[in-house]
Formats: sequence, structure tokens, C-alpha cells
Amino acid sequence: MTSEAPSSSSTKRSSIGPTTTRRSSLPPKDGIDFDNLPWNLNHPEEHTYVHLTTTTADGWTKEHYDLETDQGTLFDSVYNYDESPLPLSPACASLNYGTTIWEGLKCYRNKNGDPVVFRPDRNFYRFQYGAEQMSLPPPSRELFLRGIQHTLQQNSHIIPPHGEGMKLYIRPMLLGSGQQLGLYPSSQFSLLFYVSPTGNYFKNATGGLNIHLETKRCRAARGGLGNVKCSGNYAVALKPLMDAKKQGFHDNLFLELETYHQAKDKAGEENDSSSSSALDSAILQEMSAANVFFVFKNGEIVTPSLDRGTILPGITRDSVITIVNDFADELTDAMIQSTGDATVKVTVSSRDVTCGELKYGNATEAFCTGTAAELVPIARLATGTDEEPFEVNFTHGKALPGGPVTVTILKMLREIMVGDRTSKGTEGWLRDPFSSPEEFCKE
Amino acid sequence: MTSEAPSSSSTKRSSIGPTTTRRSSLPPKDGIDFDNLPWNLNHPEEHTYVHLTTTTADGWTKEHYDLETDQGTLFDSVYNYDESPLPLSPACASLNYGTTIWEGLKCYRNKNGDPVVFRPDRNFYRFQYGAEQMSLPPPSRELFLRGIQHTLQQNSHIIPPHGEGMKLYIRPMLLGSGQQLGLYPSSQFSLLFYVSPTGNYFKNATGGLNIHLETKRCRAARGGLGNVKCSGNYAVALKPLMDAKKQGFHDNLFLELETYHQAKDKAGEENDSSSSSALDSAILQEMSAANVFFVFKNGEIVTPSLDRGTILPGITRDSVITIVNDFADELTDAMIQSTGDATVKVTVSSRDVTCGELKYGNATEAFCTGTAAELVPIARLATGTDEEPFEVNFTHGKALPGGPVTVTILKMLREIMVGDRTSKGTEGWLRDPFSSPEEFCKE
Repeated sequence: MTSEAPSSSSTKRSSIGPTTTRRSSLPPKDGIDFDNLPWNLNHPEEHTYVHLTTTTADGWTKEHYDLETDQGTLFDSVYNYDESPLPLSPACASLNYGTTIWEGLKCYRNKNGDPVVFRPDRNFYRFQYGAEQMSLPPPSRELFLRGIQHTLQQNSHIIPPHGEGMKLYIRPMLLGSGQQLGLYPSSQFSLLFYVSPTGNYFKNATGGLNIHLETKRCRAARGGLGNVKCSGNYAVALKPLMDAKKQGFHDNLFLELETYHQAKDKAGEENDSSSSSALDSAILQEMSAANVFFVFKNGEIVTPSLDRGTILPGITRDSVITIVNDFADELTDAMIQSTGDATVKVTVSSRDVTCGELKYGNATEAFCTGTAAELVPIARLATGTDEEPFEVNFTHGKALPGGPVTVTILKMLREIMVGDRTSKGTEGWLRDPFSSPEEFCKE
Repeated sequence: MTSEAPSSSSTKRSSIGPTTTRRSSLPPKDGIDFDNLPWNLNHPEEHTYVHLTTTTADGWTKEHYDLETDQGTLFDSVYNYDESPLPLSPACASLNYGTTIWEGLKCYRNKNGDPVVFRPDRNFYRFQYGAEQMSLPPPSRELFLRGIQHTLQQNSHIIPPHGEGMKLYIRPMLLGSGQQLGLYPSSQFSLLFYVSPTGNYFKNATGGLNIHLETKRCRAARGGLGNVKCSGNYAVALKPLMDAKKQGFHDNLFLELETYHQAKDKAGEENDSSSSSALDSAILQEMSAANVFFVFKNGEIVTPSLDRGTILPGITRDSVITIVNDFADELTDAMIQSTGDATVKVTVSSRDVTCGELKYGNATEAFCTGTAAELVPIARLATGTDEEPFEVNFTHGKALPGGPVTVTILKMLREIMVGDRTSKGTEGWLRDPFSSPEEFCKE
């Protein structure tokens, strides 16, 4: 059995034109309730997806995508989603040995109704790094970006209309699809692009998120794959997430448990009566599928550092860092108006953050970021039953969830994402999937 | 798209009889070179596999397997391996979120040529635990064991002949096969059983294994899924394994890096000139796909403890512990003959083992265990380039690889695996796949 993409012509969308025909974006399709889409795979019967395979040791060749001619099997590997399952071997590398990485990115419509994609080049660089860590052959930058562009052109009728949180989610995926028993790189690889029109990730969180500080289970340790967007990182987060939800939380915030263990051991050795504050030394990581930020009363906006290799280098995380830098003065004004402290100045840092730092009102606001989550305020961070006690509550506005700095950053982010706000640092973040290949793939 | 098992009757093996017909084992098929099979998925065109799916919240019902009547779709869900790929959605939970667990077990032929399965009930209990940790619905004990039995009955012609290391490897697998974007338990699950006739796992290791002590990458940390046989644990081990092979090693032995980091930090704080021995405090875990044992010169045979939840509770590991207990006197004789020290007495422990303990000739022998590996002597354990120096060499015989204790345990294990040796502790370890369902599934 070979696990090639389905080849029956009946499963392919008949309307696929040659690549040289530049099509125009279609409007949002009638009959789909875009305003009320859950965070899920919605209307699969409306989708097409792209599935390329290779068995060559070098991975992806000109046969798949030729930069010179802008041609290749990429444009001929489009399948109707709900009619064309992937034909995988039971012994395929991805299912058995977890050799799968993926990306999530988003396409919005701007105020004119035209589709824009947010920073797809950043997804490529993360994908490329992940492929190396998982012994998978990364596609070229051009194949990756053209795959996204082509998939969007095929599915423009399900890009939701302009509106808060509404987007077409795009998932590029790379996996070992060869069959094997031994642990070694796969003999075949699949590169996929599929989509889903979606609404907001966190529903029912209008009062801000109630986040569980997970002190028993570890998402990622130093020396592992915590900074790779691979399937196993979600597997490890699933049961803790379900358990947190049972206790009424929206999600978990994971710790670097190593630092917590170390503090507990030290307290034990020293027979220290203050051992109940061991948690204060623990380093914060991220949520199940989102990075976190904390706004300190001294104006410092902090997100956990990438240096320990334990958290995902989020693209929304990176965007927020740029936004705070570029619009620091405007944010400082918001902060001064809110706190009445005229000496405060907003800055942004990527550094280790411990649980202890959040206490005693030091952290006034908190929020999480992610492609799925976008930017969502956190109202409370606390441990659950049978854990060392810990609870911090964060400022919330009366009308809107989130404190004044959080709300201002979210507003800025949303404006930038649809082209209503620009700055030096945010230049080139939006790409038009209906522009030329050269324009869409430019550095 | 629903990801149901293929239903086309043309893909099913036509010779499948009703379950009530007890068939006899077939002899090894002519034309297959069983003596020279690599550790891989061999002769897939000769296989059938079983694929059950469920979308019920409770998982597996009487429809799949009814204990009372010994009937169900289990017996009707057999597919020719090389003609029937799994039809999976690109957005299926397993591919995207790594929600897959599996087991490996083995069927040998005894001296009479009759198939025997080694401890399949132990695989069930590990599978059940893993399913809970991954939010997957575990099958009943009877469904799991009957699935193995049925798969073996279908594939008895590819059970290799009696001989060292030759076995039919059986892989039960459970995965989320429903399609979703959000992180939550799958809406559909697949239970699979597939097989492969195989030879030895470590080829070219006749002089014993040359193992790399991996001091930079972490397979599993406390609080993670290190003790679950899930796909992600193999993904994290793949690149370190490839890197170790590049340096001439056969495999890696992973550490609990936390303890190594802690010792390095402490040495740094104290400005300790002996900081180069920080590695001595590090706790040993396991190899990429095998547990490890060390034979100390005081007669203690040690394997890393399961208490930290970081290593896989291996069934061969557990078997070796029982064997050493049951045959301690015989092993003590071997040890005394080898060392000339009449005061030594062989014991077995499951406890934390540090790198430092292995030094200065304390550990005279070492070996690894696993379903794939069986039991393979380790000749050398050392760090590579750019790592803190560490090297220990272990005793090897002149004729056979492995020291005298290792060789004796391997001989005992092989005798037990084909029914040539028994003891109180090893009673009931072998099951005949052609016995009655009651006999095969007994507690």
C-alpha cells in the first residue's frame, strides 16, 4: 500500500483553473451563518484542501512547485474536503511516532471586503524550524506560501465577512506518511493545507478568562519540543485541559515544573516553614494553545522568554511585542489615565516570569495571545483543589473585559490586522492572497 | 467526510470464516525469508489487519464485541493490509493533536511450532492507563485480547518459525479519528490491530550496544506523559536518535535533565571547581524505545524506578525483574563463577539510578529490554562531543556479547518465552492464540 493522495478525478473540484488564470476573490457565500461559527472545523463540505506527497530524500522538488515557472503539482493537488479522506497506512510514521507539525494562520476581510493574510512568512520560519526538529523535509519558503495562497484562492467564498474575530483559519501541516515499524525518518511525507471559517476561540469568556495554574502536570521541559508546533504538545495538554474545565476554569497556564520541584526540594532540605511559597519561584510558560502577557504596575509588559526553549514562539505574541514598542507612547497615555501615575512608562520585555512576581498587585492586567485566541483578557489565575494555594485577580473594565492597557492593545492589534493602522515595525504584515505570486511571496 | 473503516467488500480477505469456527494455526508460509527479516513492516501484502471505529461517548459496545456471545463487528472488520488504507480526515485528532497510543507485543512459535503470545494481559493494562491519560475510550479487556487473538488467527501463516529473536510483532493502536479544530476529546475513535513478522531490533550490535548518554535533550519530564506509550514520546526521541547515530552510537540513554540542571546550577552558585561532575547526580531514564538495567558488583541488578512517572513501564522490564527474583540462586551461581567472590548474592531493585553510580567499576554489566529489543547487552555508555565527559565500559564475554549475568538472564528469558522454563512468578505468561476465547482472555 502506498499512501498517495487520492487520484480519482471525481473527488477533485471541477472548477480549478490553470494557475496562470488570476481569479478574483468571491464574496462570503450566502446561507452560511458566519456570525455564529464555533471554533471548529466548520462547513467542511464547502472546502477544498491541498495534499502533496513526496518520497524523495530531498523532499519537495520542482515537480511540486517550480519557482521559475510558477507551476507544479501544487496546483493539481486540490481535493474536495468532505469527499477525499487521506489514505494512510495504519503503520504510518505520523500516527505511530507523532512526526507531525502544523501551523495556524488567518485570513480576514478588511473594511472593503478584500481578504488579507496576517504574517504568513512568520509561519513559514517556524514550520521550517519544526521540520528540522522532527526529521521532516521542510518545503521551500515559496512552496509554503504559494500553498497558502492557492488554498485561499480556492476557498475565498468561505472567508467570513469583515468583523471582530471572524476569519478563515488556514492549517498547513507536514507529516511522515510512509509506513514503518522502526524509529527513523519516514519514507514518505505529506504536505497539507486545509481551512475552516471560524469565530472566536474562547466563547463564554466575556468576563475575562478564569485560568488554572497547573502545578502537577508539565507541558514541556527544557531540552524537549516545547518550542515546536508538533502534535504531541497538544496531546500532553488535553487531559489537564479537560480536568481544569471540570473545576470551572477556561484553560491551564503551565509552569516550568523543574523550577517548582527545585524550590520544593530546597525548602524540604532546609526544613523551611515557608515551604508553602515554593510556587513563587516557578517559572511561567504558556497555556494549552496560547502565550501569556502580564502588565506590571511599573509599566512593564512581560511575556515569558523564548530562551528556555519551552514555549511556542507565537506569532501573535511577537506581534504584540512589536505593537507595544511601536505604540508605547499611546499605551503610556492609556496607562496614566487609568492609574493616575504620571511617572509610569510602558515598556515590553521577553524574560523569565515567576509566579511570585504576579502577587501583591504587581501584575495589574493579564492576557493571552494566539492565532486561535487572538488576544483575550485573563481575569483570574489560581490553583485548584489539592494544589499549593495561589490566586491573583487582574483588573477588568466595567464595559469591556480586560484592563485599559489590554483593551488598547487588542484594539491596536485588530486595526493592524485589517490594515486600519500601520507603523514602521508592522510594515508588510498583511498580504493579499489575490496578489501576484511575487507580491505574496516577497521577503 | 466521515472516517469510517473501508467498507468495500473487495478489500476484505475472502477467507474470513465465522468466529465460531476454530481454525488451526498455519505453518510459516513458504517463500518468505524469515531468517533475514529486518526490524520493520515486512511483507505487508501478506497481512490482514483489524479496524474498528466508534462514535459513541462510551466507546466500545457490545456491537463491537459481545462477551456473552463472543460475536461482534470485531470479527467482520478485517482488511487486507496493502489494499486498505485508513481513510482519515486531514483534521483528525490523532494527526493534529497526537492523541494516539499503541502497544507492541509478540507471538513466537515454541519448539513444536505452535504459536504462543507473551503476556498480552500486561499490554492491556498499560493500554487502559494510556487511554485515560489521553482522553481516549479504552476497550474492555476482552475486546483488546480478542482483537489480538483474532488478528493472530488471521495471520498465523506469517508467524516466523521457532528461532532466536524471530517473532510476529502485533501492534494494537487506539487513536482519535474524528475531525476537529478545537482541543477536546475526539468525536470518533479507531481501534486497530496490525502485525509484522520481524527479526532482531538491533542489527550489527554483536559486540554489544554503544549507547550515547544524552545530556542536552529531554525525552520526558516529571508531570508529563513519559510513562504512556503515546506517539509523541517517539517524535521527541527521533532527532536525538538520528544525531546519536551520526556520532557512531546505536541509541541514546535519556536522563532526567532536571536533576542535571539542578546540579549544574548548584555547582555554579557555589563556584565549585568540581562542577564538571554535575552529571553524576543526574537520574537515568531509558533509551528511545527500551528500558535499561545495570548489574552492580555487589550483586544488585537495578533498573530505573517507575515512581517518577518519566519512563515506560516495560513488560520485558517487568519480566526481567520477576525472572531475577525467581531464579536468583542460579544467577548468583553465575555471578560467583564469573567474579570469584563467593559472598555476592544477586538481588533486583527498581529505584532511582544516577550516572555517578555507574562509575569506578561499580556497574559491571548493562543491558536494555523491550518488546522490539528483547534483551540486548550494552558495551559502552558515553557522552558525545560538546558534552560533559562521561564514559563507562561494561564487561563482555569472549564468545558471546554481554557479561555472564546478562547472558544468563537472556537465556532464561528466551526459555520462558517459548515455554521451556517455568516458575511460580512466570506462570500464565504464555497464551495460545488458537485456544478458546475463555482460555485466551482468562485473568
